[in-house]
Amino acid sequence: LSRIRVLSYGLGPIGQRAARLVLGKRRLELAGAVDVAPELAGGDLGEVLGDARAAGVPIAPDLDSALRRAPFDAALHCTSSFLPEIAEQLIALARAGIDVVSSSEELLLPDLQHPQLSARIAGAAAAGGATIVGTGVNPGYVMDFAAVVASAVCADVRAVRCVRVVDAATRRLPLQRKVGAGLSPAEFEARRQGGRFGHIGMRESVALLARALELELVAIEQTLEPVLATEARVTPHLTVPQGSVAGIHNVGRGLGSRGEPVIELDLSMYVGAREPRDEVHLQGSPDVHLCFLGGVAGDEATAAVLVNTLPQVVAAAPGLLTVLDLPPPRLVR
Amino acid sequence: LSRIRVLSYGLGPIGQRAARLVLGKRRLELAGAVDVAPELAGGDLGEVLGDARAAGVPIAPDLDSALRRAPFDAALHCTSSFLPEIAEQLIALARAGIDVVSSSEELLLPDLQHPQLSARIAGAAAAGGATIVGTGVNPGYVMDFAAVVASAVCADVRAVRCVRVVDAATRRLPLQRKVGAGLSPAEFEARRQGGRFGHIGMRESVALLARALELELVAIEQTLEPVLATEARVTPHLTVPQGSVAGIHNVGRGLGSRGEPVIELDLSMYVGAREPRDEVHLQGSPDVHLCFLGGVAGDEATAAVLVNTLPQVVAAAPGLLTVLDLPPPRLVR
Repeated sequence: LSRIRVLSYGLGPIGQRAARLVLGKRRLELAGAVDVAPELAGGDLGEVLGDARAAGVPIAPDLDSALRRAPFDAALHCTSSFLPEIAEQLIALARAGIDVVSSSEELLLPDLQHPQLSARIAGAAAAGGATIVGTGVNPGYVMDFAAVVASAVCADVRAVRCVRVVDAATRRLPLQRKVGAGLSPAEFEARRQGGRFGHIGMRESVALLARALELELVAIEQTLEPVLATEARVTPHLTVPQGSVAGIHNVGRGLGSRGEPVIELDLSMYVGAREPRDEVHLQGSPDVHLCFLGGVAGDEATAAVLVNTLPQVVAAAPGLLTVLDLPPPRLVR
Repeated sequence: LSRIRVLSYGLGPIGQRAARLVLGKRRLELAGAVDVAPELAGGDLGEVLGDARAAGVPIAPDLDSALRRAPFDAALHCTSSFLPEIAEQLIALARAGIDVVSSSEELLLPDLQHPQLSARIAGAAAAGGATIVGTGVNPGYVMDFAAVVASAVCADVRAVRCVRVVDAATRRLPLQRKVGAGLSPAEFEARRQGGRFGHIGMRESVALLARALELELVAIEQTLEPVLATEARVTPHLTVPQGSVAGIHNVGRGLGSRGEPVIELDLSMYVGAREPRDEVHLQGSPDVHLCFLGGVAGDEATAAVLVNTLPQVVAAAPGLLTVLDLPPPRLVR
């Protein structure tokens, strides 16, 4: 098998982590990088990653510049959660015939919130012969993909419940900020009004499960509440005073025709959360109760899912796909 | 989507169970059946299954007879564990352009023990435009597929350990017989010498994991020991006197170059086993510990995996494939 020439597109924390992981894989070659940030563009990828194996690879300010230097088979795309912000990037990659694995949460099921934009991206993918998929740990694995894979042993599934508990103290600062750790309850409330707070991709996970298992929903709803610290907590990055916000409790529900929760995705991410874990409960024939003990947490796992999906998009037929359309990702060496 | 016309090929306990499951699926149509057994061939499928929805479907004595009556998109193939016994059946199905999901344990990784036979079957599949895959709960899911899917969140995997504990008291009589329940230790020993005793497919699971995760093995070995009943046990089917065999403890190991177990699949199936479960441990970055609490046991799950894989083989490109080449199976409605 020839090496897959990978373009690292977007060098935020996850993009950098994924790029570093690529450097250790014999099946993959880190062949270029793109980032628009002025402090990164024009720099040396080896310096930014702190890894000499990437020395000499320039960070281009845009895709065209990167393409003038090297060809690519696939892009690790980690720029934004929101489809409208990445659509032109994906279309340009597709036109260049470059397959894409993206961390964009909305790309897990792009037509859910953006059907017209999705149709445009799908058209570009088909025309350019490119495969595009969005994935990650959540969304992309623990609260959706794993439940679908578990359903393989079932003769029937009537309801799905996933529980994810993450101790935010073990995560990086941006995630601690994303869950509001250290905010006062009033600050949390003000920020919640502004939207784009908490976990992104919950609606996509619920809808992907509903489609995959043909569970009929009349509505998808979501609740987001702060979890307050019952005692003071100190993480490597910040301090959470007693009574302030430790993180979030975010529940997504897919409701059936009688208003009952056919799908319930229950996510807790807060500093000091006990018994971190990922659980899948399928109510069906037979019932299935699956648990990742200790949970699938950490940026390492997110980077791994992205990198491990690269061979699957390179081998797949062109199109704007979901993780359910590809053979399951597995460890790449 | 048009309905998939299914041929039920082999009407043993698993084949019957899978056929009954097909009857409840709107995506699937039970369009015919084949069984060579004189007490079945020529009979009515509805009577054999005890289900009026299959009434009027004759059980043909061979594939040609079945094909004279109806065309088929895919076969649910449940005739034998061993590739040499089913190779001609698979080749005939492939020549007729019929995709195949088979419960044959050796078909999980057919070239492991039968490379030449596999090449012949693969050639017939390619020529006939048919997709052929072997799967099930074990092998096919809990001790191999699930571990591979779990590796998607890992940056590295150094070793794999799966533990499966089945309380044979909850299973059908053939499985209780297969694990030797009720035999004296001497009878167990005599039968073990004859081979074909205990769990079939252990070597295939170890080898599939090794290939999928690129774990280098110098040898695959297997141990099989009786588990003796510490007290008398009564199941709906038989009695296990104290001191007699309650079942088996069967361990498959893939050994690395220093003789260390890189892969260890630890299977206990005996009457009275406590804490039935399926566990996957990946030693890597990060470590992953996955558990199906209560275990994925029962013929219902085996039939479900087979039936739920039908849409994937129908959609896939032709060839003799493994479960890792297809999008993951999921509940079919």
